[in-house]
Amino acid sequence: MNLKLAHTKGFASDNWSGVSPEVMEALQMANQLHHPAYGENDPMIQQAEKRFQEIFETDCKVFFVYNGTGANVLAVQHLLKSWQAVVAPHSAHLNEDEGGAPEKFTGGKILTVDCPDGKIRPEQVEPFMSSIGFQHHVQPKLISISQVTEMGTLYSLHEIKALADFAHQQGMYLHLDGARIANAAVALGVSFSEMVTQTGVDVLSFGGTKNGLMFGEAVVFLKPELAEGFEYNRKQGMQLASKLRFITAQFLAYLENDLWKRNAKQANAMASLLADELEQVNGIRLSRAVEANGVFAIMPKELIPKLQQEYFFHIWNDSQNEVRLMCSFDTTAKDVQGFVAAAKRLLK
Amino acid sequence: MNLKLAHTKGFASDNWSGVSPEVMEALQMANQLHHPAYGENDPMIQQAEKRFQEIFETDCKVFFVYNGTGANVLAVQHLLKSWQAVVAPHSAHLNEDEGGAPEKFTGGKILTVDCPDGKIRPEQVEPFMSSIGFQHHVQPKLISISQVTEMGTLYSLHEIKALADFAHQQGMYLHLDGARIANAAVALGVSFSEMVTQTGVDVLSFGGTKNGLMFGEAVVFLKPELAEGFEYNRKQGMQLASKLRFITAQFLAYLENDLWKRNAKQANAMASLLADELEQVNGIRLSRAVEANGVFAIMPKELIPKLQQEYFFHIWNDSQNEVRLMCSFDTTAKDVQGFVAAAKRLLK
Amino acid sequence: MNLKLAHTKGFASDNWSGVSPEVMEALQMANQLHHPAYGENDPMIQQAEKRFQEIFETDCKVFFVYNGTGANVLAVQHLLKSWQAVVAPHSAHLNEDEGGAPEKFTGGKILTVDCPDGKIRPEQVEPFMSSIGFQHHVQPKLISISQVTEMGTLYSLHEIKALADFAHQQGMYLHLDGARIANAAVALGVSFSEMVTQTGVDVLSFGGTKNGLMFGEAVVFLKPELAEGFEYNRKQGMQLASKLRFITAQFLAYLENDLWKRNAKQANAMASLLADELEQVNGIRLSRAVEANGVFAIMPKELIPKLQQEYFFHIWNDSQNEVRLMCSFDTTAKDVQGFVAAAKRLLK
Amino acid sequence: MNLKLAHTKGFASDNWSGVSPEVMEALQMANQLHHPAYGENDPMIQQAEKRFQEIFETDCKVFFVYNGTGANVLAVQHLLKSWQAVVAPHSAHLNEDEGGAPEKFTGGKILTVDCPDGKIRPEQVEPFMSSIGFQHHVQPKLISISQVTEMGTLYSLHEIKALADFAHQQGMYLHLDGARIANAAVALGVSFSEMVTQTGVDVLSFGGTKNGLMFGEAVVFLKPELAEGFEYNRKQGMQLASKLRFITAQFLAYLENDLWKRNAKQANAMASLLADELEQVNGIRLSRAVEANGVFAIMPKELIPKLQQEYFFHIWNDSQNEVRLMCSFDTTAKDVQGFVAAAKRLLK
Repeated sequence: MNLKLAHTKGFASDNWSGVSPEVMEALQMANQLHHPAYGENDPMIQQAEKRFQEIFETDCKVFFVYNGTGANVLAVQHLLKSWQAVVAPHSAHLNEDEGGAPEKFTGGKILTVDCPDGKIRPEQVEPFMSSIGFQHHVQPKLISISQVTEMGTLYSLHEIKALADFAHQQGMYLHLDGARIANAAVALGVSFSEMVTQTGVDVLSFGGTKNGLMFGEAVVFLKPELAEGFEYNRKQGMQLASKLRFITAQFLAYLENDLWKRNAKQANAMASLLADELEQVNGIRLSRAVEANGVFAIMPKELIPKLQQEYFFHIWNDSQNEVRLMCSFDTTAKDVQGFVAAAKRLLK
Repeated sequence: MNLKLAHTKGFASDNWSGVSPEVMEALQMANQLHHPAYGENDPMIQQAEKRFQEIFETDCKVFFVYNGTGANVLAVQHLLKSWQAVVAPHSAHLNEDEGGAPEKFTGGKILTVDCPDGKIRPEQVEPFMSSIGFQHHVQPKLISISQVTEMGTLYSLHEIKALADFAHQQGMYLHLDGARIANAAVALGVSFSEMVTQTGVDVLSFGGTKNGLMFGEAVVFLKPELAEGFEYNRKQGMQLASKLRFITAQFLAYLENDLWKRNAKQANAMASLLADELEQVNGIRLSRAVEANGVFAIMPKELIPKLQQEYFFHIWNDSQNEVRLMCSFDTTAKDVQGFVAAAKRLLK
Repeated sequence: MNLKLAHTKGFASDNWSGVSPEVMEALQMANQLHHPAYGENDPMIQQAEKRFQEIFETDCKVFFVYNGTGANVLAVQHLLKSWQAVVAPHSAHLNEDEGGAPEKFTGGKILTVDCPDGKIRPEQVEPFMSSIGFQHHVQPKLISISQVTEMGTLYSLHEIKALADFAHQQGMYLHLDGARIANAAVALGVSFSEMVTQTGVDVLSFGGTKNGLMFGEAVVFLKPELAEGFEYNRKQGMQLASKLRFITAQFLAYLENDLWKRNAKQANAMASLLADELEQVNGIRLSRAVEANGVFAIMPKELIPKLQQEYFFHIWNDSQNEVRLMCSFDTTAKDVQGFVAAAKRLLK
Repeated sequence: MNLKLAHTKGFASDNWSGVSPEVMEALQMANQLHHPAYGENDPMIQQAEKRFQEIFETDCKVFFVYNGTGANVLAVQHLLKSWQAVVAPHSAHLNEDEGGAPEKFTGGKILTVDCPDGKIRPEQVEPFMSSIGFQHHVQPKLISISQVTEMGTLYSLHEIKALADFAHQQGMYLHLDGARIANAAVALGVSFSEMVTQTGVDVLSFGGTKNGLMFGEAVVFLKPELAEGFEYNRKQGMQLASKLRFITAQFLAYLENDLWKRNAKQANAMASLLADELEQVNGIRLSRAVEANGVFAIMPKELIPKLQQEYFFHIWNDSQNEVRLMCSFDTTAKDVQGFVAAAKRLLK
């Protein structure tokens, strides 16, 4: 077969990469004879849930879905009635980049707050609480945060806990969009349990695709009672895979032998290297803190298209000439050095 | 890695099987360096669309999605406003087995007709036309049929054309749920173009997962103008894969060297063999015509659980002791003979 | 002002009539100075709720809405998640005549049963219970019945209780569409409490418009805990009137001095008279039991359009030449006699 | 009947008032014998539509609905697919005060802009256009403005035209929320045709309830071809009144002999008087331009609750001690003077 592949390795996004060899191997191992469809009476599902429970050190409930939009939207809508609202940073993937899926599926509203560093604080949620009990307004019921944020920044454990505490005091829930949760755990040097369970997060979108899986994310309910009926939501949300074993097997490989950690470490380390190198380049400057696997930089307008020809990446803020450079598990020091060398060459 | 797999090969469903070796190979080939996410500026997508256009002999538009529910629901809702309705057999997967996803996503109603053989006729749609122009009723706008039907039967080309003609005379569309379209084409000995394009089908859910793919289906708009804006629907419907190349590559493998045909031929042949063998067994009788890869049979009540211990399969109609036996691309004559032998042994 | 009114009094529907003088008077009384909008801190609302609580002999919660579709759809969806389903007779107004509003607003499915007399029985709901726990199917959660039914028939108190008991045993709810509940109470000679509270109905659409109000229905939660948050649903459902006092005042007039009873009695009596008279007419025969204010009759095909010229009414079943003749609170014996005389004259 | 009415006439909102005598009279006139339900074959509907067409000087299509939320939500969603978005000021009633109904019914998103004076400008819509063609973002398709705005301000005809022109250049529509359109027309001294038809507005929510009607608003499609199928939307949106004549008759009275104009003139004049008088009061100052029937003022914190005891009104911005004082068609100079006198007295 002759695939017309686009072989340039660049810094466009961590979902431009392929999959880890261990993941591909798991897919092949899973490809044996017959296995129950849809996860029903499936021993692998039980094995995977047990693994999650070990890692999160709690009796969580785990549901595999196809993608991050599915995980976020289903998690959020499961906990809300249509007249209840999510509060989130305006920059949240849930708000900006899911094509209106949250509104379509929940039938409700996202109340947003401008958060320049991508992080929302309890005092920014507070003003929405005045709507409670007022029948003309949607009723805030859930706070959604991203860790790593869309701005490449990280919440400290303390900050997450403060949000969870605030939410619970108000009778609300806290959702964490963990599309890059492995990068966050590695960057903070904490376990998933410390970051999620112990801070009080209620429901988590646990990402895999951006860190070496082929497809598949997990919705993790840290409080098992909140999960009731989620299987029907997943089905109605068109996120139930028939050959579910091929998602489950990837997650088993991902959580075994710390594959998730090795992958995230590499991505983060390369972002760090890239940031260090770029700081040395005259005419380029970092525009945001580099806390995980993303680097944001401002560079001369005319450099951008030329550099994109060699290493593809996305413009983040056109008017500021700010670009986003994402590193992934397969980014190498050579890739970084090649990129920086190209930038220098083209700047001359 | 130690996967807890359920290794019994049975006759539960064609989505209990794994994937064809050619498909696994394509996944490995696709796993090279970086490749555009979401299919944007992706040469593989163009290659795949071209292949579909050759096969369907028309300028169709093709969109890859995760699963059959996604394909059906998005195809149908794309052509409807929420006050317009789908007309379908009551037994349609769209009506019975998609967990309410059509209602949730379209916001509309499915008008159903009892069709004992799984096939709807124009004269069964006709009565709904009296609602046209009556503001209290939903307005029928689309007919949805399954080929192969959920009852294992097939529409003739003539029957499909009659439905398409009726639909178009009424200002309606015809959707074909082709979860098992390869089995249908092989069984009828016709091309996809003859069955779909030339009969006048407007939009098709082109299945892959039940015939040897890992995941992925295609929504095919036979009239390209109907596809306008579908990419936004797919995204909002949570069916846009980030690493889309891994669906595209599977389809390229599937459509190359007639893999789809070889797989479907094997499944159909095994169903035929199974039917022939079961007819010889005293106490078992076929309950429906065997036209593709499904066999429906009535067997003694007490036999069923014992036989399920050895070869898992589903009960179709509990009160009738009717079971459904699905053959798939990896079913072998040995599997069939083993099953029949077990039935005979247990019947003694 | 010169209104182009259509002054023929006929038998089309009980919503072709105007309003009772007492209701018009209440509207005028309510039209004094200023009064809180949206029912907030509104003493009239409290007065009305108290009146309902007396009549239903329970601590019910009452919410006024604009119309019957609003009452039905909001009541039903309030108790369901989108993956849960309503079970109802196929002939239910909720299923047939609300233009898809239930599907749009609940995002879910109506599971229907053919009920020739318009009445569903527990044994017809039973088969749907096999879907419980099966993730591919919607989950039945509520039974909806109409009293009077769309076929003009009545459930006995025993029959309602049997449905409520069945529902509760299964963890389901019972909803009663009482668009013509006053006609039912009068016909059965029972109180609202006996018919609704004491049989175990969970939520009720309490109709007014078809029995002498201008606009306005009430959603009555017989179990107050089920009402939680309903005010947000009503608002989101676009059914919160700003000048709500004009609905409240109508209901106060309606429930005072038994206006509801006098109106319904008149309508029922006229239906009874009409049935008696029609039975005497050669060539016309009653097609259904006359239990409340509707009369169904079969008459010669050629008579229908001629008679409709003089007294408008609707054809119920075209192929059977069956017509529906609705009596309302303002139908008089003279109207009935005039109609029957016209029929006789035209039949000659 | 003894209605527990709240008789204080205050400045809470123009929907705390009752109805004009002419409107009450029209209701009584309409209450004669029988009349077609749901507006079907209803001569009054045709009469009313003709009246609208005269006033708007174009072949517009008119649909009556129950309330402003219904008018706005149905108008907007009729022109959008769920993946298309409305652009509106953040302060829009559609965004802030409709309890999530737009999201629920359209399944889509509202993109908002901060507009301190309640008015959006084309250059504020412009940035959203960069989402066009990007499959991850909702696609802007409609601009919605309020005239009078929620801040009591007015768009000039030139400003409306600029928005309409911008919208049409971008392939978008312009919706006008005219809950207080009569107040706007009177304030600007222009006809409805000049303000709406000639500026290029595509669809209008024509308000009545806030200017002397009991209930009822009209959705007016200025381009009749945009109205296709709207009757099904209205029904599915639960906004079709069965005794529709009682809305139609109100509108006929409202548009006859310039009732709308007299009512709005009175309300505007009283706001103007109130503003003039308040400006004289030491310790109170106007916080926004008074352009129609609303007055916004800042007053001492301790004054507010005391004054509310005598004349109820709403606090607009708690932290600023800003209150909103709405005048309506039945506000008199004596009411205004009484209010100002009370303020002065309480301020001592």
